[in-house]
Amino acid sequence: MDEAGRIAIMARVLGAGGPGIEVGIGDDAAVLSPPATRLVWTIDEQVEGVHFRRHLVSWRDVGWRSYMAAASDVAAMGAVPWCALAALVVPEDVDDAALEAIAGGQREAADAARAPVVGGNLARGSVMSIATTFLGTCERPIERCGAVPGDGLWMAGRVGLAAAGMRALEEGKGTAPGLAAAVSAWRSPRALLTEGRAMAGHAHAAVDVSDGLACDAGHLADASGVQLVLDEVALLEDKGLRDAAGALGASALDLALHGGEDYALVAAGPTAIEGFRRIGEIRAGRGLVLRGVTGERPIEPRGFDHFAR
Amino acid sequence: MDEAGRIAIMARVLGAGGPGIEVGIGDDAAVLSPPATRLVWTIDEQVEGVHFRRHLVSWRDVGWRSYMAAASDVAAMGAVPWCALAALVVPEDVDDAALEAIAGGQREAADAARAPVVGGNLARGSVMSIATTFLGTCERPIERCGAVPGDGLWMAGRVGLAAAGMRALEEGKGTAPGLAAAVSAWRSPRALLTEGRAMAGHAHAAVDVSDGLACDAGHLADASGVQLVLDEVALLEDKGLRDAAGALGASALDLALHGGEDYALVAAGPTAIEGFRRIGEIRAGRGLVLRGVTGERPIEPRGFDHFAR
Repeated sequence: MDEAGRIAIMARVLGAGGPGIEVGIGDDAAVLSPPATRLVWTIDEQVEGVHFRRHLVSWRDVGWRSYMAAASDVAAMGAVPWCALAALVVPEDVDDAALEAIAGGQREAADAARAPVVGGNLARGSVMSIATTFLGTCERPIERCGAVPGDGLWMAGRVGLAAAGMRALEEGKGTAPGLAAAVSAWRSPRALLTEGRAMAGHAHAAVDVSDGLACDAGHLADASGVQLVLDEVALLEDKGLRDAAGALGASALDLALHGGEDYALVAAGPTAIEGFRRIGEIRAGRGLVLRGVTGERPIEPRGFDHFAR
Repeated sequence: MDEAGRIAIMARVLGAGGPGIEVGIGDDAAVLSPPATRLVWTIDEQVEGVHFRRHLVSWRDVGWRSYMAAASDVAAMGAVPWCALAALVVPEDVDDAALEAIAGGQREAADAARAPVVGGNLARGSVMSIATTFLGTCERPIERCGAVPGDGLWMAGRVGLAAAGMRALEEGKGTAPGLAAAVSAWRSPRALLTEGRAMAGHAHAAVDVSDGLACDAGHLADASGVQLVLDEVALLEDKGLRDAAGALGASALDLALHGGEDYALVAAGPTAIEGFRRIGEIRAGRGLVLRGVTGERPIEPRGFDHFAR
């Protein structure tokens, strides 16, 4: 199929309108009438061989994951997803059926998030990638920089499970007992949009966990100029994570601290937030501290770094 | 340099605020307060080996071109560029100095267009690419679908020159007489933003020429359900194009009809538009016709098709 034919496939699968979408797929640009006076705007990119490996996921998963990874940034700002654009680089060996499955995964994700894909770009290239840009609406965005000493540290969703799932698939243990939830967490992550909205009026600062809890919580600590205390017992409360770690012979704590791609939300704020559980607190100081039963120790803000050597 | 360090390089070079930019580079998403009630929104991607070859351009050119290609879609809608995000995939052999040069090219382009880059994404990968998403503001967008029989066909900018420039570079003739303008057209294209705004109130329909005049004008004809007549004499009036074609031993008409990446604007409308010259007209019917001195002949809406075999 030529470029026009492939755009037609995408348009047929994705083509849904929504509030404020005046012109969608098919012109030089989408035309929008913003339903709010304040917007948040992000772009995320998923690259084959880095964020996914073709033999470990379905094409539907590739589309779903690319959408949800971008939507998670909107959730992290406490905003409501509005609409998205997707730019695909497509190698020659990705056929029309694969492209349709990718669009199908994007459409399923868009239906779940109630925010349509209203345009994009197709280019050829030797390595598959999907760049997704997202607009959300909000009254008051929640930035990374507002945490203050005395705040609690709260988390919605899970951490470490997706990394366990990817490792299970890489080691050929995708169907082993105790690993089903982990594999599903990695293949079909879900942006925590409801939880993100629940932060309004409660959270002083927030991030989503894409590169790993220690790494992303470290960003929040740096931006706010505070110290984050993570409670080891709270992080290990997740039985599914402990089971997955056991099945892999891995450390559950290591997975929780340094595994990425679960898209949990971490917020700092004075009171409990609906859908979040307490995992620590904010103190004066700098950096990250892990508080275990036998005492405290500093931890490195390490996660998945695209350029670390 | 690690990911945080590389983001700091980009932020230092790119970091400019602008009207309605409440939060720029450094959070999960940019925060915007739209200065207009209607927006246009596009995404474009430049991929190494497809849109550029490293040995034929500077890193500054790679940044500049990626920005301008996306800005051109905003111009084609008759909109005013507001701000952009850029997602870069960066291979290991692209060092910090190269990244800084790319950001420098983006910044130069952003200053020229008066629309800052307010955020983005960095990922590693084996093939360099830059996806740029752009927001513009407008009162009344100019779509592809409004051309009516009797309209004139108008063009701002030039066609065929960039394709001649790329061919000159590929053939090692980048410094040959007659080819300097062509090489510059390919390396440093400029989105026709002033001309785009001049279309307001005059143009019934418009496109930008990224894939080639015949291809993109064909999209306008299809979307409007009309026939486009292109005037051969008008297309060959460009002495720079004729000189470049001569130096390459190529057909100037072929370059004008099928060469891409000049980012000319083509509009249909009843009256002259400032900065545009007449290159043909709109008739009832379908498809494209070339009118030469000896008569008319249909032409294929062929240009650079990413998936043509």
